[in-house]
Amino acid sequence: MQDVKTYISEHKERFISELFDLLKIPSISADPAFSKNVIQTAQKIKETLLHAGSDVVEICETDGFPIIYGEKIINKKLPTVLVYGHYDVQPADPIELWDSPPFEPVIKKTDKHPEGAIFARGACDDKGQMYMHVKALEFMVNTNQLPCNVKFMIEGEEEVGSNNLGVFVANNRKKLANDIILISDTGMIANDIPSITTGLRGLSYVEVEVTGPNRDLHSGLYGGAVANPINILTKMIASLHDENNHITIPGFYDKVEELSTEERAEMAKAPFNLEDYKNALDINAVYGEKGYSTNERNAIRPTLDVNGIWGGYIGEGAKTVIASKAYAKISMRLVPNQDWEEITQLFKTHFENIAPEGVTVKVTPHHGGQGYVTPINTIGYSAASKAYETTFGKKPIPQRSGGSIPIVALFEKELESKTILMGFGLNSDAIHSPNEHFGVWNYLKGIETIPYFYKFFTELSK
Amino acid sequence: MQDVKTYISEHKERFISELFDLLKIPSISADPAFSKNVIQTAQKIKETLLHAGSDVVEICETDGFPIIYGEKIINKKLPTVLVYGHYDVQPADPIELWDSPPFEPVIKKTDKHPEGAIFARGACDDKGQMYMHVKALEFMVNTNQLPCNVKFMIEGEEEVGSNNLGVFVANNRKKLANDIILISDTGMIANDIPSITTGLRGLSYVEVEVTGPNRDLHSGLYGGAVANPINILTKMIASLHDENNHITIPGFYDKVEELSTEERAEMAKAPFNLEDYKNALDINAVYGEKGYSTNERNAIRPTLDVNGIWGGYIGEGAKTVIASKAYAKISMRLVPNQDWEEITQLFKTHFENIAPEGVTVKVTPHHGGQGYVTPINTIGYSAASKAYETTFGKKPIPQRSGGSIPIVALFEKELESKTILMGFGLNSDAIHSPNEHFGVWNYLKGIETIPYFYKFFTELSK
Repeated sequence: MQDVKTYISEHKERFISELFDLLKIPSISADPAFSKNVIQTAQKIKETLLHAGSDVVEICETDGFPIIYGEKIINKKLPTVLVYGHYDVQPADPIELWDSPPFEPVIKKTDKHPEGAIFARGACDDKGQMYMHVKALEFMVNTNQLPCNVKFMIEGEEEVGSNNLGVFVANNRKKLANDIILISDTGMIANDIPSITTGLRGLSYVEVEVTGPNRDLHSGLYGGAVANPINILTKMIASLHDENNHITIPGFYDKVEELSTEERAEMAKAPFNLEDYKNALDINAVYGEKGYSTNERNAIRPTLDVNGIWGGYIGEGAKTVIASKAYAKISMRLVPNQDWEEITQLFKTHFENIAPEGVTVKVTPHHGGQGYVTPINTIGYSAASKAYETTFGKKPIPQRSGGSIPIVALFEKELESKTILMGFGLNSDAIHSPNEHFGVWNYLKGIETIPYFYKFFTELSK
Repeated sequence: MQDVKTYISEHKERFISELFDLLKIPSISADPAFSKNVIQTAQKIKETLLHAGSDVVEICETDGFPIIYGEKIINKKLPTVLVYGHYDVQPADPIELWDSPPFEPVIKKTDKHPEGAIFARGACDDKGQMYMHVKALEFMVNTNQLPCNVKFMIEGEEEVGSNNLGVFVANNRKKLANDIILISDTGMIANDIPSITTGLRGLSYVEVEVTGPNRDLHSGLYGGAVANPINILTKMIASLHDENNHITIPGFYDKVEELSTEERAEMAKAPFNLEDYKNALDINAVYGEKGYSTNERNAIRPTLDVNGIWGGYIGEGAKTVIASKAYAKISMRLVPNQDWEEITQLFKTHFENIAPEGVTVKVTPHHGGQGYVTPINTIGYSAASKAYETTFGKKPIPQRSGGSIPIVALFEKELESKTILMGFGLNSDAIHSPNEHFGVWNYLKGIETIPYFYKFFTELSK
């Protein structure tokens, strides 16, 4: 594939401006106010897939946002790659912390991205990484180098739990039949240290509500005499971790996979500088479960984090009130073998049990998904590894990620095929945060590397 | 004073509609958006005092909202009563919990107010109770029965800590010179159980901010590896109470006045039904400091309550984020002898000390004030007692209140006179809460009772 670099340099500006067009649409799936924009994005994905050379593209309606299915079948005897990605994005708030508007993409240089990075919500997660595959297809089709069949499944509910994807996949096994699933929705260690994600954490996301008195009360007249829902909520949440930062929910660790000393030693080889890590976050110390390193804490260990909390008077100035209700959004990252629905139930039962007299507690599960570990002794992994080696000039490192792509475990179950996670973003790209960005170099490197995966996978499949 | 009842029945409708006009102005001192309305209310208070018969009324500018001073001096040899009240109100939120708009007063019957109650923010705290004094003055002046001199000092910053009142009082000792201070900004036990508040709690109100990483982070990539400011904040707040609900701040209880068994036995005589109390709040149990009754917990014991908490994603749906910052508004109710500035400093030092590595903590004091206990063996108390006895037909019970009127202690210090707290509201009037109201009967009863205080106080002063 001598000419992939040439093709990219010739079309670079267009590749970027096409991505800009996608990024300008605020496809925030979590907020009903943006539903129109999500639908609009789905329509745009269809057009880009057709333009890139798909024979067939369908907008498949679901109970939620539509799933875009596209395919280019060149020969039924050849292997088939199924590309998964998502066109929805996280909410942009807190908007005031963005240096430029989240849906007006701009290119700015950074230390990690001296050639410039595209700043916009979704630039990396996942519009930018998903669109690399569309442009890689365009290249292979226009240069008659597509070596196998390809299918696309691009959803619009990944950031809210992919609630309708499971049904869609189960109902379309034949249509989605494939030999390997390819996803770019993770990261790599550094631009000069390519890596392939071999493990993902599961997720259980719940919302809790603590109700005390039937109305807000004057904190002078009632203070000290009734259970204050906010004080109670802080006590309950605080009790979910012990002094070693182990999670105290009974049964929570029962199915946690314990890695061998060898495996942990292997992990520890991945380049990591704790000082750089702390400096990048402006923190004077890391914090987490006793007995595990930072990279273990955020990859092979389950966690419990409050993602949002609110109650009482949060406006300007002071209000001496005891709120009637207090709320929190809590998510647990799970490791392989932990079942997210079981963990959600364990949380619910425990949280309701520890509620003291004087308050009532409601636990509402939001969504979740299973963790996943992919073997590295497959032709899929080998093909990806050779592809990185070709374009980066060095062998990629297998790496566990702390993130979750709940549907990966589902794919394996329903479609009986493995998933390869070829991520080209960096942890420092601030996905889910203000000023999310994606390196222009990374974007183009992805478009350059993906065709080699098709090439090697097809060769190794013979 | 045979004709006070007659006068009230003749002018009842006007007394109510005049109060309505005051209640229609949203004089929320905590929120800068309403500054114009606060000023507008000050102007209106001036007009009503002049109309009621004051000789002189001044709008005294301060660094914050103005203080209205009015007086009617009939004879320098006679005693002088100084009436204090406030024309600002608490914020109305959560607005959605109001059954009728907070600044569109309406009269509705309730179980405790069969003759109807005025529903509006400020109806009881303090516009309604303050205006009783204006109408009582009108009656005494119009019927030539004002037995002594009277001064009014009505401020507009009580709900935000009376920050400028101290300076005003210190700079106007001569102008404000008086023999007794009269305030209606508290409650009584029940319409058939008149009581006089003899104790108030002090207050220290602070805001805390916990900062972790320099930006919001993806909870998958960083979850478990860095200190989550919300989790940390809940741990820190939870640690402020021990298992007996004692406050754990070192030195917090050092100066707390311990009541004798006799005093506690005396307090326990006040009519109180725990079941009614729980039912009124829809709670299955009360909650508080071990070793003390409900009435002791909210009157003679100091407390620490979170009045507001916020951080992370609090919108619809789910966002898997670790917030960079988490916040809480915390107030402590103090008892006599606890110095609010000392307690604020103890809190600040302790809260900063318990911050774990990985976060930084900022504590910002909002405002505060000292507690107060008034003796019952004074002519002021006797005059008030006889006034209630005359109009209610029974002797009022002395009662400690859990609320705070920080400036009462200040008055005693600067003006060297005692304060009498003649409150006509009920705890169930929902001050500081949605659907605040004030019984029409209570409003008119106040107007009827106040002139007798003037009468008896003047007689007893001879």
